[in-house]
Amino acid sequence: MSSQSQARRKRLLRLLKKKQLGAILVSNPVNVSYLTGFTGDDSMLLLSSKRAILISDSRFETQISQECPDLDAEIRSSGQSMYQILSRLLSKMDVSEIGFEASNTTYSMWQQINSEVSNVTLTGTTGLVEELRQIKDAGEITELREAIQQAEKGFAVLQASLVPDMTEQEAAHELEHIMRRFGAKGASFEIIVAVGTRAALPHARPTTRKLGEAGFVLIDWGATNQAGYNSDLTRVLWTGRLTPKLTKIYNVTLEAQQKAIEAIRPGISCRELDNIARSSIEKAGYGKKFGHGLGHGIGLDIHEAPRVGPSSETVLEPGMVITVEPGIYLPEWGGVRIEDDVLVTKEGYEVLTSVPKDLEISRWG
Amino acid sequence: MSSQSQARRKRLLRLLKKKQLGAILVSNPVNVSYLTGFTGDDSMLLLSSKRAILISDSRFETQISQECPDLDAEIRSSGQSMYQILSRLLSKMDVSEIGFEASNTTYSMWQQINSEVSNVTLTGTTGLVEELRQIKDAGEITELREAIQQAEKGFAVLQASLVPDMTEQEAAHELEHIMRRFGAKGASFEIIVAVGTRAALPHARPTTRKLGEAGFVLIDWGATNQAGYNSDLTRVLWTGRLTPKLTKIYNVTLEAQQKAIEAIRPGISCRELDNIARSSIEKAGYGKKFGHGLGHGIGLDIHEAPRVGPSSETVLEPGMVITVEPGIYLPEWGGVRIEDDVLVTKEGYEVLTSVPKDLEISRWG
Repeated sequence: MSSQSQARRKRLLRLLKKKQLGAILVSNPVNVSYLTGFTGDDSMLLLSSKRAILISDSRFETQISQECPDLDAEIRSSGQSMYQILSRLLSKMDVSEIGFEASNTTYSMWQQINSEVSNVTLTGTTGLVEELRQIKDAGEITELREAIQQAEKGFAVLQASLVPDMTEQEAAHELEHIMRRFGAKGASFEIIVAVGTRAALPHARPTTRKLGEAGFVLIDWGATNQAGYNSDLTRVLWTGRLTPKLTKIYNVTLEAQQKAIEAIRPGISCRELDNIARSSIEKAGYGKKFGHGLGHGIGLDIHEAPRVGPSSETVLEPGMVITVEPGIYLPEWGGVRIEDDVLVTKEGYEVLTSVPKDLEISRWG
Repeated sequence: MSSQSQARRKRLLRLLKKKQLGAILVSNPVNVSYLTGFTGDDSMLLLSSKRAILISDSRFETQISQECPDLDAEIRSSGQSMYQILSRLLSKMDVSEIGFEASNTTYSMWQQINSEVSNVTLTGTTGLVEELRQIKDAGEITELREAIQQAEKGFAVLQASLVPDMTEQEAAHELEHIMRRFGAKGASFEIIVAVGTRAALPHARPTTRKLGEAGFVLIDWGATNQAGYNSDLTRVLWTGRLTPKLTKIYNVTLEAQQKAIEAIRPGISCRELDNIARSSIEKAGYGKKFGHGLGHGIGLDIHEAPRVGPSSETVLEPGMVITVEPGIYLPEWGGVRIEDDVLVTKEGYEVLTSVPKDLEISRWG
């Protein structure tokens, strides 16, 4: 991990230089982990061109020496605050201005830092590390492939195990349990299992409705692997009889998804990509029934940059990994969403997920 | 829920009056839920003596009308920011100063509020709703009893299912799965299953070490019920032969815990309570091996006020629910921690948890 972390810190320092900042205090634990390899909590990274110091406490002393041997660590004693240590370090570092993560620092923390740190200007920054995290390096893509494999193996077992008496909640819990058996740390978010009309809610929470109560079920799930990387998929499974309506809605959604996936390449904007799927659904007459963005980046967070929606100007670059998940939601009837995870490559794209989407075989029971 | 929520908001208004604040913006989602009954995300409560308004978005419109019919809701459209709505509401409310939750408001949020809201002073507050939440009402105690029952039923099944080849991770995942079968939403924190020397780490994460690799295992677990209330217990189970060392350390820990529990009554300070367990362990010669506080409040958060430690001046009051969890940690050998959840009553205390602690029967295999 250490050479990779070092390369990431160098890239961050280059970004800081552009903003004319000599140092930054990183407080978002996911960003700290990304920049150091440290997997614990309650710790902050103080980074300048000359030093990289992890401020932590005695609970994590051993872990830090194992996970990030290349880093200096400042272990605070129980009587000492993080901010007192920070103040002491800054006074020795000879910086006049330091950035802090404005969206991951509470007003209380900011006040405490302000009162401890003198002669240094605090400047709020947003999205710097998040910008770096958009482009996955080779190690990260391997982690994402693992998280996807755990999710897909889990889904295969679940699909084979479904019975009409099972509730949405039971199916969701069962799926998480199976993914853990395949090595996942857990589900990457609260799994959605939505039977029939429940599938009309894009963020449906599993209820005690039984799978057998309607002809189809939407499952939106993913795994977090041990390194913290997340996968995210959605499939619709039907049972009994395949109705013309489900066939229609499913095919419109699938066609929109396929058109968008095939358009993925470096240089296209997220807005354009969203528009490809959206116009395809609009042409079929369901434009107003697709009420959310086309997708989002995945990585150490289940939702991260880039956002893929109608107003996102981000341009795709090789190494980005995004979900492509158009959906059509009809309140009285239900909904269909189909979601895959796609890597942007130099040449175009690679679909990382592989659960079959052919409606004929997307069935259970 | 609505009359209970209303009573809670009244108590908060009384607290605000003492601080000479006419209104508050509640941003911590757990506090919003406590004060309104609303269980969704991304919403804020604006509260004054005259109005209680939930600022939310269209995803939650139906849910709000179902969960909090007594509240006014301001549903923002996708183009509108939360802060624009807030500004408009405040200008109509005739308040010159408003409190905000400084520990649950990021610097970015504070900046945005500041730039939208004019003619109103923003004053950071800390711990106001958390202070109210210390005292559980009858409905909350029922919820906590349920979360405890889910945890205890799960543990009984797990204890009966343990086999030497099972890893710490497998046991942890199994326990969460079983608790869900008994109705839990999930585990209330990442379950600790720590075999032998691993138990010397108070915050051990489950590894692939097998249960059979040592003579005892420490399990620290709890359930979150569907209403979001949390339980928290710790037990040590042994297998094979009961060693004199385990017997010794276990009995010292148990005696310290029992002395502390028996001292629980309204009027005693958390510091004094901690000291009762601590001196008991010190007398046995293990004072330096008990490196954390005696316990903490539980409720909608797994760790909440009051803190029960050597420097906590909070005085116990009827309705508080705290954990009592002394521990002894010996790096080369392992550790013992015993933890129960205790309600402070008018007369003294009621231990809400009931998993047996007799060492003779605390075994598996």
